[in-house]
This record gives sequence, structure tokens and C-alpha cells, in this order.
Amino acid sequence: MEEQALRKEIKNLILKMREDNQKNLIPIEASGRHIHLSQADVEKLFGEGYQLTPRRELSQPGQFLAEEKLRLIGPKSVVKNVAVLGPARKSTQVELSQTDAVGLGVKAPLRLSGNTEDTASLFIASAKNVVKLEEGAIIAKRHIHMTPEDAAKLDVEDGEIVNVEALTTRPVIFKDVLVRVNENYKLNMHLDYDEANACLLQKGDCGKVIKTGKHAND
Amino acid sequence: MEEQALRKEIKNLILKMREDNQKNLIPIEASGRHIHLSQADVEKLFGEGYQLTPRRELSQPGQFLAEEKLRLIGPKSVVKNVAVLGPARKSTQVELSQTDAVGLGVKAPLRLSGNTEDTASLFIASAKNVVKLEEGAIIAKRHIHMTPEDAAKLDVEDGEIVNVEALTTRPVIFKDVLVRVNENYKLNMHLDYDEANACLLQKGDCGKVIKTGKHAND
Repeated sequence: MEEQALRKEIKNLILKMREDNQKNLIPIEASGRHIHLSQADVEKLFGEGYQLTPRRELSQPGQFLAEEKLRLIGPKSVVKNVAVLGPARKSTQVELSQTDAVGLGVKAPLRLSGNTEDTASLFIASAKNVVKLEEGAIIAKRHIHMTPEDAAKLDVEDGEIVNVEALTTRPVIFKDVLVRVNENYKLNMHLDYDEANACLLQKGDCGKVIKTGKHAND
Repeated sequence: MEEQALRKEIKNLILKMREDNQKNLIPIEASGRHIHLSQADVEKLFGEGYQLTPRRELSQPGQFLAEEKLRLIGPKSVVKNVAVLGPARKSTQVELSQTDAVGLGVKAPLRLSGNTEDTASLFIASAKNVVKLEEGAIIAKRHIHMTPEDAAKLDVEDGEIVNVEALTTRPVIFKDVLVRVNENYKLNMHLDYDEANACLLQKGDCGKVIKTGKHAND
């Protein structure tokens, strides 16, 4: 009888561990290079009163991949068919990987999206016009989007800094990942292609959140 | 007097911690895509009796970057000016990053150098000939080279699996890194460009070895 009780206890412990492990898992996605345009730049590139055409919805509600593609022109090369994300934003921002930045010949700093002061300059070209982006080309700092419910489950809060272990073929732990909580977000960590290829990310791969005790406001 | 003793003790503890931290540091280098050729393939590509021409020594003693450059031809693209490392080896091996493999259109598996059975096929072209590599294109598993003296200092042994925290602008911890000990090695961890760009590696950056208790033979 004692052995049976012990077996049951061990089984319950294992189930609990599995549950705890599952609880901390988040989906990871790779984001390619892309452009967010201001409405003023949309009109410069495509014509007066032009509106971006949604092709498909992205994982974050309201965000879409546009039908429109653009070229990025840097000192060292031109990249064609660059994705444009909609809807139009307050200001134009180009999100690159380090590989892209080196290829284009620009020094794009690591920044949180939206924080584009003193960042790299590039030309953006459509079929009919070229716009000079004075600043706005960045390497986007990785972060996790989640709802308040996700945050409660993961035991983290908005602005918290966590590490994320990518459970992939070539596993790495990404340090200093910002948690962003908003009712409209969908649980997701975005990596750029350098980070995704570094861990050999495949579709459906997940990461495990590891608390660090740090906060963006520290 | 008691306060002074305490201060001294704290100072010594801090110095000890700094020393311990320093002790675990290793230099990290990025390796671009490159080709190791067998002597048979050297002769097919450059002519009978041809010997590779050393341009400069690499960090591992005896290894050199050759003057010769080659093209890699895959189903989706051609990559020019690919580095050739010498001296010639027993068999030809192409080391790519995942970004390279996707660009060329081949599925290169993650392998330890030398372990090329059932790996990807590519064409290798010089100015005068094209050789079909039936297998041998891999993504090389990261590892650390070190001497027995380094191993003793770092408290690791040949075949041990460690994690390495890259102390870089965008810090990541690389898991499952193999330790290779040999008298002729020089202390160094090699990353491919996906891994180097993922952590925004800059020249002179170091990593910190973290023991895992795992061994390649486990």
C-alpha cells in the first residue's frame, strides 16, 4: 500500500511539473524586415489620398500585411519587395535585422519600436517615387505581446524584463526581453531573422519565460 | 576597527568575484561561410598538383584563409567569393549559416564539423571547373576550442557541454556548446553570422562559460 501511495504522489508531482512547464510557454514567431509608413509617406509613394491595401491580418489584432511592396535603398545595396505593414502610423519606421543593415550599408541601432530619434537614414522607393527617410531605420528590440490574462498566468507584468529560452533545434536563451501587456495584444514573441536563424526556429516552436526580477523602469 | 575589518573583507570578496568572473571569460569570433576542400577537389577546381595559397593565418594554429575564392551554386541562388580554408582536408565540407542555406535553397542540417553523412548537396565552381558536392554542406555546431591549460582554468574537460552567455549589446545565452580540448588549439568560441548577429557581436566581445553538468557522451 505504501508503495502505491508513493507512486501516486510521484505521478501527481510529475503532472504538476508538466503543468507548470506548460504554463510558462509562449509562441515565438519570426518577423522579416518591414516598413511602417506615415500617411504622408503613403501619399508621397503611392499618390494623394492613397490608402494601404490589406492582404492578410497579422498576429497582433488590427495590424495587417499590405499588398504594397517597397524597395529600400542604402549606400551599399537595394533590397526589393520589402513588406509594408498597416495601418499607417504617426511616423515612418523601417525594422531591419543586423544582416539587412550590414547588407544595405547602414548602422541601425537597437531600439524599441517607436523610439527612432537619431537612428539610421535610408531611401524608400515605390514604382513612382523615392522618399528620403531622414531617421527611422532600427533593429527592433525583442519583446513579448500579451493580454492582462496571459500576464497573470505567466506571473509577469507590463514593463517586466524576462529571459526567454527558445525550445528549438539549436536552443538559446534570449536575455532582456520586454513584456508588453495590452488588452488588444495576442500572446506572441517576435524575433528578427538573425535571432530566429540563430536558434533554428521552426513554425510552431515555443519559448519558456524565465523571470529575472528586472523591470524596464529599474 | 570592526568597520574597517568589514570593509576589507567586502573589498576582498568583490576582488575574488571579479577574478572568478574573469576566469570564465572566453573570446568569441564570428565565422563566415567557408569551404574546406579535399586535395582531389583542389585539383579538380584549380588544376593537377595545385596547392592552396595561404593569405593569412586563422586563430586556430596551422589553419589559413586561402587566396582562392569559389562560388557556391544552389537551386535558388549563387554565392560568389566564398572563402576557402586550408590546408586541404580528407573530404570537402561547406559550412553555411541558416541564412545562407535558405538563400541557396538547400536544407543544410546542424552537424559537428566532419560529420557530413546525408548532408546537403551543392555545386562548387572555380573559374575553370564546377564540382558537384554530393554531400557535405552543413550548419556547423558551435563549439569552443581550448588547450588543456585553458580547460583546467575554466574547470571543464574535452567533450563537456556548456552554455555560453554572450556579453554583448543584445545578450543571449547559447546552450549546448561542445568543449574541444587539444594542445594545438587556441581559446576561442566560433559563432556563425546568424548567431553573431543575433547577439550583435562586436570585435573583442567575450562570453562567459556556464557549466551544465552535461557531457557529449551522456
